[in-house]
Amino acid sequence: MAAALDPDRCFDPDPTVRRVARELFDETRRLPILSPHGHVDPRILATNEPFAEPAALIVQPDHYILRMLYARGVPLEALGIPRRDGASVEADPRKVWQLFADHYYLFRGTPTGVWLDYELHEVFGVRDRLTGESASGIYGAILERLSAPEFRPRALFERFHIEVLTTTDKASDPLEHHRTIRESGWRGGGRVVPCFRPDAVFRIASPGWPAELEALGREHGAPLTDYAEFVCALADRRTFFRRMGATATDHAVLEPYTTWLPPDEAEVLFQQARQGQVTPADERRFTAHLLMEMARLSLQDGLVMQLHAGALRDHNRQLFEQFGPDRGGDIPVATEFTRNLRPLLNAYGNDPRFTLVLFTLDESTYSRELAPLAGHYPAVRLGPPWWFHDSMEGMRRFRERTTETAGIYKTAGCNDDTRAFCSIPARHDLARRVDANYLAGLVARHVIDVGDARRMARALAYDLAKETYKL
Amino acid sequence: MAAALDPDRCFDPDPTVRRVARELFDETRRLPILSPHGHVDPRILATNEPFAEPAALIVQPDHYILRMLYARGVPLEALGIPRRDGASVEADPRKVWQLFADHYYLFRGTPTGVWLDYELHEVFGVRDRLTGESASGIYGAILERLSAPEFRPRALFERFHIEVLTTTDKASDPLEHHRTIRESGWRGGGRVVPCFRPDAVFRIASPGWPAELEALGREHGAPLTDYAEFVCALADRRTFFRRMGATATDHAVLEPYTTWLPPDEAEVLFQQARQGQVTPADERRFTAHLLMEMARLSLQDGLVMQLHAGALRDHNRQLFEQFGPDRGGDIPVATEFTRNLRPLLNAYGNDPRFTLVLFTLDESTYSRELAPLAGHYPAVRLGPPWWFHDSMEGMRRFRERTTETAGIYKTAGCNDDTRAFCSIPARHDLARRVDANYLAGLVARHVIDVGDARRMARALAYDLAKETYKL
Amino acid sequence: MAAALDPDRCFDPDPTVRRVARELFDETRRLPILSPHGHVDPRILATNEPFAEPAALIVQPDHYILRMLYARGVPLEALGIPRRDGASVEADPRKVWQLFADHYYLFRGTPTGVWLDYELHEVFGVRDRLTGESASGIYGAILERLSAPEFRPRALFERFHIEVLTTTDKASDPLEHHRTIRESGWRGGGRVVPCFRPDAVFRIASPGWPAELEALGREHGAPLTDYAEFVCALADRRTFFRRMGATATDHAVLEPYTTWLPPDEAEVLFQQARQGQVTPADERRFTAHLLMEMARLSLQDGLVMQLHAGALRDHNRQLFEQFGPDRGGDIPVATEFTRNLRPLLNAYGNDPRFTLVLFTLDESTYSRELAPLAGHYPAVRLGPPWWFHDSMEGMRRFRERTTETAGIYKTAGCNDDTRAFCSIPARHDLARRVDANYLAGLVARHVIDVGDARRMARALAYDLAKETYKL
Repeated sequence: MAAALDPDRCFDPDPTVRRVARELFDETRRLPILSPHGHVDPRILATNEPFAEPAALIVQPDHYILRMLYARGVPLEALGIPRRDGASVEADPRKVWQLFADHYYLFRGTPTGVWLDYELHEVFGVRDRLTGESASGIYGAILERLSAPEFRPRALFERFHIEVLTTTDKASDPLEHHRTIRESGWRGGGRVVPCFRPDAVFRIASPGWPAELEALGREHGAPLTDYAEFVCALADRRTFFRRMGATATDHAVLEPYTTWLPPDEAEVLFQQARQGQVTPADERRFTAHLLMEMARLSLQDGLVMQLHAGALRDHNRQLFEQFGPDRGGDIPVATEFTRNLRPLLNAYGNDPRFTLVLFTLDESTYSRELAPLAGHYPAVRLGPPWWFHDSMEGMRRFRERTTETAGIYKTAGCNDDTRAFCSIPARHDLARRVDANYLAGLVARHVIDVGDARRMARALAYDLAKETYKL
Repeated sequence: MAAALDPDRCFDPDPTVRRVARELFDETRRLPILSPHGHVDPRILATNEPFAEPAALIVQPDHYILRMLYARGVPLEALGIPRRDGASVEADPRKVWQLFADHYYLFRGTPTGVWLDYELHEVFGVRDRLTGESASGIYGAILERLSAPEFRPRALFERFHIEVLTTTDKASDPLEHHRTIRESGWRGGGRVVPCFRPDAVFRIASPGWPAELEALGREHGAPLTDYAEFVCALADRRTFFRRMGATATDHAVLEPYTTWLPPDEAEVLFQQARQGQVTPADERRFTAHLLMEMARLSLQDGLVMQLHAGALRDHNRQLFEQFGPDRGGDIPVATEFTRNLRPLLNAYGNDPRFTLVLFTLDESTYSRELAPLAGHYPAVRLGPPWWFHDSMEGMRRFRERTTETAGIYKTAGCNDDTRAFCSIPARHDLARRVDANYLAGLVARHVIDVGDARRMARALAYDLAKETYKL
Repeated sequence: MAAALDPDRCFDPDPTVRRVARELFDETRRLPILSPHGHVDPRILATNEPFAEPAALIVQPDHYILRMLYARGVPLEALGIPRRDGASVEADPRKVWQLFADHYYLFRGTPTGVWLDYELHEVFGVRDRLTGESASGIYGAILERLSAPEFRPRALFERFHIEVLTTTDKASDPLEHHRTIRESGWRGGGRVVPCFRPDAVFRIASPGWPAELEALGREHGAPLTDYAEFVCALADRRTFFRRMGATATDHAVLEPYTTWLPPDEAEVLFQQARQGQVTPADERRFTAHLLMEMARLSLQDGLVMQLHAGALRDHNRQLFEQFGPDRGGDIPVATEFTRNLRPLLNAYGNDPRFTLVLFTLDESTYSRELAPLAGHYPAVRLGPPWWFHDSMEGMRRFRERTTETAGIYKTAGCNDDTRAFCSIPARHDLARRVDANYLAGLVARHVIDVGDARRMARALAYDLAKETYKL
């Protein structure tokens, strides 16, 4: 990890490729950021309070960092991650930061390392390498900056040149922070919009389902006692989200199974769920049916449908019980799209009103299933490389394995998918660099000319996200 | 898409690699074309009538083109593709061509774009880029050329320097066009030979099976009322194909499952099929058994057996119902070879008389299953990258993932697998370039020397296809 | 295959990458060899007798060579491989060598070719290319060298600069050769240590199981008549291996399925097995349970647990029946780790006393399952690319697909996994080159700086193996 950022970083060293990559990146580097899928907490922009200190801002919310440190034996307690049982954990953020810095070498060659190098250098103006020795000084320097007005969330939002920032919100979320932002008069040159993610009310076999259903009913204004009313509530919430600026929904599933249940079965399952008498197999079928309903509603309300498939959540039960979700214990599984999506695509995939953006953690599906589906069905778009694959080599593989079958114009541009607000520019910088480099490789091999490459670079950095997500 | 074709196209930009790639490509570029697997209609060479016009020649038969345009919202009706219900579709080929040209940007970075650039430039002498603006002029220029004698099918065949062109023909095909060609006295410096593809009579659960069986019986000369007679008819047809020049059979299956059924079960299934009482599971077992029979017959008649596994045909039911098969709605699935082929390979895989050429749409099987099988069983050869993977990056991945385990000498050289006659030289040009570039990369890294590379380049471009397919 | 070895072999031709790769390789090329997993017969070092002749040393024990020759039609009989039925096979090693040399072109572009080129040139000082013409002369030259004292096994061990050589040994092995080596006073600057591999006594459905169990009981000192005694014997043997220098166990499974059986079921299965009444499904469950036991014991005795998953052994029944195992007839299958390992990792994966090294033949699991598991669970390490993937492109793919998620510090360095003693330095040379080249690529793209790269190169070549295997 270099303290200085080389202007040619991430570009292949071949002189022709590098020259063209620079030229293409010059075309896109100053374009506004569209962030159509992410997990930033809208509260920080609603309240616009200064960030507290570096560990809470940079280390603790980032499961990429937590997982890597944990994997090399650093207890989450030592990183100040609160335990569910309330047992004491490290309370001194400087010690957390020191531990992080001591292990910073683990991120050599990883996208987290690339992002952090950028974030420290470009966002916080740090000029030293982060090491155990420099940790304390860098902590102090960042801490000082955080108290300045230009490091408040909204000021950073403007400086990052964000045009649209999309959050991810539960079906029952009242979207009060979004309301606060809208009513505050601040627009910062951009928009903060919600995204409708109803997963929690789809998981009828989960212990938390009754509470989620109740919350949905509360926001809906009436208890949800039958399936028809439940779907009606979902439709209403979608309309509400849409009024609050949403252009998309998002659905996370273990497998992208879709099917229409017989008319009465959905109602039966719903009632059994209310009595706590459903199995994971029931949930699987219920969710498959609800995905069909969501697609059907998308035709009506125009919300773009996103599907994130293939993460086995909370694989590590002990860690989950001690610390809760999103601490790095999710592991991908092999994923099947061709057969699983057939019912949904046969029903709606040819409809010009429908857009379905697919995400995978199983790279073997890129060339085998996803690019062929996107290269055929008008409704299908490929989301950018997700999570573990949102990296230099991961993005290269994605382009190399999908472009030849689906072209670039069936992909959905870039998103950052991050909880870590200050990493947003780093992630778009990396994506734009990798795409510029990929296109430069095609130019150098005379597959496309540089004029086409320039148009393609803009499409990947900006136009395709705008078009796909109707921003 | 460049209008001019760079002599170094598809070569890596590194000067050493490029210099060696040029040298190797010089070794192979003028070799005759062996096309041991493809889908050109033999009628065009039998009648040798001039091609009608550009849209019918280039756009409408090419499902690579149709699928991409359809995927971005162009209705097949607007491309003049006939509907099964006879509803009207675009009848003006100039409008079809214009629509194609308007969307030509979609093919940037795809093999279709590379092939079309070559075809327009090298076959038709077009020197302008194809765009919405140039569409009409280019249409006129190609139209004019098509009326010239040197653009008749046989003249092009000779100009393309084709040594063998293999078609793909149903078991019941009388091969009249092949007969016409043979009896015409024209040889064009090459041969046009059939390939025995009996899939339609294997699909006992398909609604069209009775008609296919009847057609087979008609050609065989007797109705096929029991299983023994059915297999006998297949054996006879193989012999007939062989007499007409065939050196291979071809079999397309969803999964490459093989097994011997108990002696009476094949007969029982056959009779149930005749009564229309079989399920897809029955068909799966029946096909698995017939693959064993085909291998057995190959030992006797010497026909090379090809197996294309893993395409889920007609995924898009609406499109299939409206337009029929081969319109771009086939989607690959994950494919298992190791266990599925074990019965067949245990029975015949060690026999020096047998050759089995395997094709996959699941690239994860290259290094995991296919290269290990080819690197062990004497009978097994790997077919070239198929369909979606017959591309610059696809061919690179194939070589990178199979050569280290199976070497190049267990692969089957190149085929073009195309319906689009005029794209044949483009496809072989691309394959020879990619292989030259791959080998140049090995030379540049001192893994092989340039003398070996030269021999390997010839093997990949010509010798291995000749040897594998006994041409 | 070059007769001369280029100092830059395996390095990308880009001048920047090559310059840095050289620099990094200079850092690692002279480091001692740690070989923490392999299959060298310890007898050769115990007796230290001269190797007999080249065919028996180089050709016949190497299933990489046998499989490739067999795949192109060379009968194993002609290579002098003994048949189980005692039928006569080629007895003249010079003829075997000649046949090998005649087919040496098959290894162009394969790791076997790279290793052999190195072995001939560096170990045996051969300066001619191996061809049919040079075969006899090269045979004579090697034969002559083998009679010299400096080509005895222990002398080569010292010359190879091996620090630790780990063998692979059955649970019932008395380790007499290891004892002989230890008691001989020779240390050669290094150690020869066993590795505990109890697979044979786990395979309760195998015909050979009773004999294996009996052998284990014999070494244990008491017949093993119940499950508790069986596990006790395994624990005792582990202790014995540990006293003899072992630091690890090894387990080869078709699938990495793990589960705790109900307390009595293991005993029931064990008794059924003793009566020859178990199915492969029983064996699968029994093995899954024993893997849990092995992990449990590892916490106590500190032995590192290795898991090699995904090889379907003896796929070619005819070949197996004629020649026995390890002749090249093993074929990989798709492998699932996420769900299969969950029970074991939930039980022990968070324990700092436990180390689990995972190996796969299914490269699609690198980025999908293995790197996410290693990048989360403290106990998990990724073994180096195994078997078919222990190659230039295979190692590159491994680094490219695991580093971004797990970093390099959750990988286990290099091992050679070879039966072919004289190929050990060739294999480590190749691995160190490929890693140097990979890191040089990161430096050239400014992802890491050259100081970090240097530390990483050392870690990959030496430190990580030492740490992971507690050497």
